[in-house]
Amino acid sequence: MEPDPSKSPTGGSSSLIFLGTGCSGTLPDARCLLKPSTPPCAVCSMGISLPPEGNPNYRLNTSLLVDYCHDDGTHRYILIDIGKTFREQVLRWFVHHKVPYVDSIILTHEHADAVLGLDDVWVVQPRNDRNDVEQIPIFLTQFTMDSIARRFPYLVEQRPEDGDEDAQAAKIDWKIVQDDVEKPFVASALEFVPLPVMHGEGYICLGFLFGRRARVAYLSDVSRFLPKTKHGKKLILVHNSLFR
Amino acid sequence: MEPDPSKSPTGGSSSLIFLGTGCSGTLPDARCLLKPSTPPCAVCSMGISLPPEGNPNYRLNTSLLVDYCHDDGTHRYILIDIGKTFREQVLRWFVHHKVPYVDSIILTHEHADAVLGLDDVWVVQPRNDRNDVEQIPIFLTQFTMDSIARRFPYLVEQRPEDGDEDAQAAKIDWKIVQDDVEKPFVASALEFVPLPVMHGEGYICLGFLFGRRARVAYLSDVSRFLPKTKHGKKLILVHNSLFR
Repeated sequence: MEPDPSKSPTGGSSSLIFLGTGCSGTLPDARCLLKPSTPPCAVCSMGISLPPEGNPNYRLNTSLLVDYCHDDGTHRYILIDIGKTFREQVLRWFVHHKVPYVDSIILTHEHADAVLGLDDVWVVQPRNDRNDVEQIPIFLTQFTMDSIARRFPYLVEQRPEDGDEDAQAAKIDWKIVQDDVEKPFVASALEFVPLPVMHGEGYICLGFLFGRRARVAYLSDVSRFLPKTKHGKKLILVHNSLFR
Repeated sequence: MEPDPSKSPTGGSSSLIFLGTGCSGTLPDARCLLKPSTPPCAVCSMGISLPPEGNPNYRLNTSLLVDYCHDDGTHRYILIDIGKTFREQVLRWFVHHKVPYVDSIILTHEHADAVLGLDDVWVVQPRNDRNDVEQIPIFLTQFTMDSIARRFPYLVEQRPEDGDEDAQAAKIDWKIVQDDVEKPFVASALEFVPLPVMHGEGYICLGFLFGRRARVAYLSDVSRFLPKTKHGKKLILVHNSLFR
């Protein structure tokens, strides 16, 4: 399978596409709209009164698409997190940027806003020349895997949901990674260094350090850094972009 | 808590608000848009080229809101199914129809397109005069309950997700019902008769018969009727509305 580099929005370079920079509950907050305060909340009012594109107050679950351009000009698409609003993100931003599929997925943690879109993963799976669905690798910790297995047993067992005879089963290659900065892994030929951080005490969420020419540290859900995660090198830091 | 009847779109009468009449994968199908055929699929192209309101090819997960007007003029809002697209449905149709909250929820079955919006149930919970969240009853079979308990343990245990210290815990009163036409139950003072049907062989999905002046049979996911579910009375039949 050879993606057509001319179809990439970035031509011969890599890019980051921020599919969502909102909180778990997203913006606008429906509560503000169903029971408006006096005066109404300006943020949520704007969130629904302008088209979502370019609307700073229409924000979906945090998710990043890495459009990675290899040296030979081919593009690979690596998705970090697939939350509750994944369907909308695909319809809006995949179509806009002409992203044809996802090559691999990486999960930061197992909260609903990071994984609940997995039921729709089949719509972005790559296909081979005969139009058969190809397996998509999903990188995640064992802790996240255990949670996914409870939530989506049919995805782990590669079958449709019970009783859903017409549905297509997703084809997924589950790949366990370690929450350890010393244990990088490779997704679609790009190396990712896990950056474990605390997301509430007692709960570890992964950030990732990646990129060859520019180094990017992507940390989407952090309450406290761990000493071992601090990194001295010069890099682009993307950190809880909701608050920036 | 006394809802303001003047705020209801239907004034002094009951109504049915179809929040979604789409399939599990919704319309438009993102696959048609990411890899367009030649010529492009007319249905999915229209699904994304017009605003969702009034667009017959923009269809979200099947879900019905029963706006039930009591004899004293007060309204109660009963939601049947809360699928993957619940957030969008609230923002679009709850706001449009000025629906302030949901009084009770009924689940037809435990597939993703019927239950995966449960993580967002907190945005439509009723509140008392002191603005405290009130418990919302959710009616479901034991089979569905067991599935929900695996998928959403934090909702069943009434706590935030692990590590999500800032989140608000939903307050839910889980109410087990039988898949038996002889065992009606009452949600927000309206009687519902369960209508078990097959949804794929070996898998039971519930439809419901309800309404005082007009009788409505709502059957959202049916592959085969069961003899005991057939009902001789004159009624309004809503059946797999996707295909009508």
